[in-house]
Amino acid sequence: MSILIKDVQVDREVTQILIDDGRIVELGAKREADTVIDGKGKIALPGFVNLHTHAAMSLFRGYGDDLDLATWLETRIWPAEANLAPEDVYWGTKLACLEMIKTGTTTFNDMYFHMDQAAKAVREMGLRAFLSEGIVDLGEPDRAKAQLNRADEANRKIEAMKTGRIVPVLGPHTIYTVSKDTLLAIRETADKKGYLIHTHLSETKREVDDCLAQTGFRPAQYLDHIGFLAKDVIAAHGCWLDPSEIELLARAGAKVAHCPVSNMKLSTGQTMPYAAMAEAGVVMGLGTDGPASNNNLDMFETMKVAALLQKYAHRDPKILPARSAFELATLGGARALGVDAGLISVDRLADLVLVDPRRPELTPRHDDMSNWVYSAHGNCVDTVICDGTILMRGRRVKGEAEILEKAASVARNLVSKE
Amino acid sequence: MSILIKDVQVDREVTQILIDDGRIVELGAKREADTVIDGKGKIALPGFVNLHTHAAMSLFRGYGDDLDLATWLETRIWPAEANLAPEDVYWGTKLACLEMIKTGTTTFNDMYFHMDQAAKAVREMGLRAFLSEGIVDLGEPDRAKAQLNRADEANRKIEAMKTGRIVPVLGPHTIYTVSKDTLLAIRETADKKGYLIHTHLSETKREVDDCLAQTGFRPAQYLDHIGFLAKDVIAAHGCWLDPSEIELLARAGAKVAHCPVSNMKLSTGQTMPYAAMAEAGVVMGLGTDGPASNNNLDMFETMKVAALLQKYAHRDPKILPARSAFELATLGGARALGVDAGLISVDRLADLVLVDPRRPELTPRHDDMSNWVYSAHGNCVDTVICDGTILMRGRRVKGEAEILEKAASVARNLVSKE
Repeated sequence: MSILIKDVQVDREVTQILIDDGRIVELGAKREADTVIDGKGKIALPGFVNLHTHAAMSLFRGYGDDLDLATWLETRIWPAEANLAPEDVYWGTKLACLEMIKTGTTTFNDMYFHMDQAAKAVREMGLRAFLSEGIVDLGEPDRAKAQLNRADEANRKIEAMKTGRIVPVLGPHTIYTVSKDTLLAIRETADKKGYLIHTHLSETKREVDDCLAQTGFRPAQYLDHIGFLAKDVIAAHGCWLDPSEIELLARAGAKVAHCPVSNMKLSTGQTMPYAAMAEAGVVMGLGTDGPASNNNLDMFETMKVAALLQKYAHRDPKILPARSAFELATLGGARALGVDAGLISVDRLADLVLVDPRRPELTPRHDDMSNWVYSAHGNCVDTVICDGTILMRGRRVKGEAEILEKAASVARNLVSKE
Repeated sequence: MSILIKDVQVDREVTQILIDDGRIVELGAKREADTVIDGKGKIALPGFVNLHTHAAMSLFRGYGDDLDLATWLETRIWPAEANLAPEDVYWGTKLACLEMIKTGTTTFNDMYFHMDQAAKAVREMGLRAFLSEGIVDLGEPDRAKAQLNRADEANRKIEAMKTGRIVPVLGPHTIYTVSKDTLLAIRETADKKGYLIHTHLSETKREVDDCLAQTGFRPAQYLDHIGFLAKDVIAAHGCWLDPSEIELLARAGAKVAHCPVSNMKLSTGQTMPYAAMAEAGVVMGLGTDGPASNNNLDMFETMKVAALLQKYAHRDPKILPARSAFELATLGGARALGVDAGLISVDRLADLVLVDPRRPELTPRHDDMSNWVYSAHGNCVDTVICDGTILMRGRRVKGEAEILEKAASVARNLVSKE
């Protein structure tokens, strides 16, 4: 199906965008198309890439805040997650997809459980997603075997869907919840099958201290030392990376997802050293983290908080200017995942949004880029197209009322089971 | 004019709110009223109090970001402000009022120039405002005299409007732009006429260092030492307050407006010591600061960033929990300004908003308070009532299109004059 978006602003020019077979095929000419969207007064932006989330944790939004990470996990999240049924993940992911669409995200990198159900939700909602079954073995060989099998099964189910939009990924949780043997088994599978690997790295000081005490290495050094670190690794957080680790990540070509809102909310105490990592050439993107530790999936807000946090933490208001924050949230994430998205240009994937700037917080328009990063929230998004398909138009998404109702209902049941 | 809001949720109960003559007069009973609003499915919250802003700086939104404070002021803001005409302030304040209404703010504490024009804008838009003409003398007696006269004139014009909704305030800019003599003249006027005083205090380290070098005192100590500090002082920022200053502020009954977004964006390097100030009993509220250093007026975002920043900066995720952030943004600001707002209860001013929670980012509803602080943005506000008058219903505000157009036009002209 072809789509023509006519009279729309791209960068500083008003132009036409022709989409066919899921790609942007031409910019400029007014052609015939199956669907014509009037873009007058609107601005086209690449859809956001949320490089780290746990989408179905939307079900636990607001279920335990203002707690330290360990208390939050041990007393709230893990007990509630113990009740998670496959259908819960389906509805939680539907809810998250709905929120992502309404705030302009077209691609997300997810780690959670029952990922075949997440894939089913994503297939229906139309986003592009990289899905990894979270693997946690706690050093127990039996558990490791079961978890690897479960992940393998989820990935096979996802592959059987035969849609390029939904990509299976391997998801070892962290270095402190996954044994060396399991990490190496995952490395072997990734090498053999070409899967990306999605993990958490250097989120808390405790992780660094424990790793140093147990292995003599800092977390990224440890991953490098065991032969795990490579260009297919996408590591979330990186709050406590030191210069030696940045060097290792850059050399390996590993990617990092900066999650500023979650890091501040859980008080990780230090922030990802963006400037040093950019200098070293590490590919970076932005993630919201799961909606239970953020508590939303709005990438506009995450761009702003990323820019604010980098400026504040490094005591330099020039760090991470608006354009760089926007690039992290779009092209950076796309590069990390190896998808041709993140830019509005010919041959790129047709993953884009139309924004309506006729709003008080986006007036005046001295600098649109500043407005997107520092003034906007996701509600300025009017239209969302992913993979050449229209997912939202005039802020209406198919099935919204049913998703809100079902997700609220399964969320209530989940926490009342405890 | 009386208003009945029926079937609306207040705290955890569904009830009725009866408003008459600008106050909430009854909760619970279904009475006759001139206007009936169906509140079914909606939640009533007190309107936000923005305790520190420069509203008309909406005209400079996005005009110079990612700069240090001195460069930003000296190369961008001050040259552009040199061209400011009274009508610009009128349209800039209209634009800011529109944005505040659409994001749920009903009261703001403002400091800028040509405040009679700001007052005209506020009168038309219907918010409650505390307006101070900014006073800057740079140690020059002639300038001081002219500025005090200008402020006096603005305040007399505001008083001549005879509306309780708009209150004149005295606005000495900072201790480093206003001489001791002028500060004392302002103290005298405040004592005589009962005006509040709105100032900036302890925003940057340089302010503290310079004050120590020049007077031997830290900023709040200096204000106390010269006899300026009292319960009518509302000081914005307070990033670098030390325990001795907190003690002085608490003893004097002075108020502080925490402006986390602006502080992070301009990289002030340290954050207001909320926990120590709460412990000492200092009355605090939240401010967005001007929309040129934020760059929006959304108090939902400011509540979230306040909670995030306090947790991050003090390395404790339990600091400033959701309910406390919400109280700062409502009752705290109202107490600072001495208005009977900030709570939905009988005899309080009818300054309140209706929020529609049927949105993906506000689903599920494990904890509404968490949802307001951590998940919501201003666009969840459906209806705004201030002083017993409906300012927005179904997100429609009278005159919106004209305000956007005129404000954009004067903003373009302002920066093109340079």
